[in-house]
Amino acid sequence: MNRDSRTVPSRYPKRAHEDAATIYPILDEALFCTMSFVWEGRVRSIPQSVVRMDNAVYFHASVGSHFFRSLAQLDEVCITVTLADDIVVAKTAFNHSINYRSVVMWGKPEVVEDYNEKYAAFKTLTEKMVPGSWDYLLPMTDKQMAKTMAIKVPITEASAKVRQGPPSDVESTEPIWTGLIPIKPLKGEPIPGPDAVGIALPEHLR
Amino acid sequence: MNRDSRTVPSRYPKRAHEDAATIYPILDEALFCTMSFVWEGRVRSIPQSVVRMDNAVYFHASVGSHFFRSLAQLDEVCITVTLADDIVVAKTAFNHSINYRSVVMWGKPEVVEDYNEKYAAFKTLTEKMVPGSWDYLLPMTDKQMAKTMAIKVPITEASAKVRQGPPSDVESTEPIWTGLIPIKPLKGEPIPGPDAVGIALPEHLR
Repeated sequence: MNRDSRTVPSRYPKRAHEDAATIYPILDEALFCTMSFVWEGRVRSIPQSVVRMDNAVYFHASVGSHFFRSLAQLDEVCITVTLADDIVVAKTAFNHSINYRSVVMWGKPEVVEDYNEKYAAFKTLTEKMVPGSWDYLLPMTDKQMAKTMAIKVPITEASAKVRQGPPSDVESTEPIWTGLIPIKPLKGEPIPGPDAVGIALPEHLR
Repeated sequence: MNRDSRTVPSRYPKRAHEDAATIYPILDEALFCTMSFVWEGRVRSIPQSVVRMDNAVYFHASVGSHFFRSLAQLDEVCITVTLADDIVVAKTAFNHSINYRSVVMWGKPEVVEDYNEKYAAFKTLTEKMVPGSWDYLLPMTDKQMAKTMAIKVPITEASAKVRQGPPSDVESTEPIWTGLIPIKPLKGEPIPGPDAVGIALPEHLR
């Protein structure tokens, strides 16, 4: 992936990575990204659900979304995901940190016109949200496909930044506890909705 | 807070909020934000730890950070936080959703010159990361204060968007399970670092 002054951090350059083997798994773990762009000369950002296939990320919206239609007119958007893993507890507030994995990427949005690619993006997003669920759900209808717009952003420039491991301060021998507090999200027990009365929890959600 | 075309979503306007009572708790729960801005005509975004005090958010970096010094020259930055609460499981992939709380805000960054305000921002961030820890840690030194730069972004324009509750599809009476899968991060058991051997876990971490 291309590397320029935007993807080379000035601080902690050793935390930076630009290989797909680092970048793709971070994009694949993140349910949300922030999409940012310049609109009428000013910066705007919106949170979006995100899914990656090959070297592009995909977004879905209603075909009624004027905003999404406008996106495809932009020369580029900047997409950021951040996964927080641990709070890094040091002896000093100064050396506290967070273990995280983040990606910043740029690309030009385009509307996905191909039916199969759009269908695959929908399926991949659904399986990302609830693994194993696609075949259990009611099948996607042509009407639903027609109501949905997919936007694709090829990953033309990207870098990841990763901090992992224990705190780094060794400034004191005082007996102060240091270590990690995990904050990585874990899926909780499924909570049945009002329509799920008397319906067994499917295998893939157990 | 000011409301203009940037903060009024074109889709699902009933999910939008612009009152401090909704916006502040979301900012206060989020450890990370994405800060976006226009740099040499192009959009850039970076993940940042964030803390709010009164009607502003604060960021910390080394005084050696050229990037942070440059930030204070910008007319505005856009800051986004997103808290994911649940995956919303519907009968159709089409109606799957995510329960989330997000904030988008804009403001002009400024360097915090006041010692007490900078100290307070440091303390508030530390207490946000590890509640109850400030008085347990080694005290912040003047040297550490001098090595740290704080940037403040007053919240001049902001809106929150919130989706909560069960799935909304009622398209079918098929016995397909619907409901919520919680994904809200919960703090895990603290993991001692290499320097914590023989040091008791402090009360505030239990």
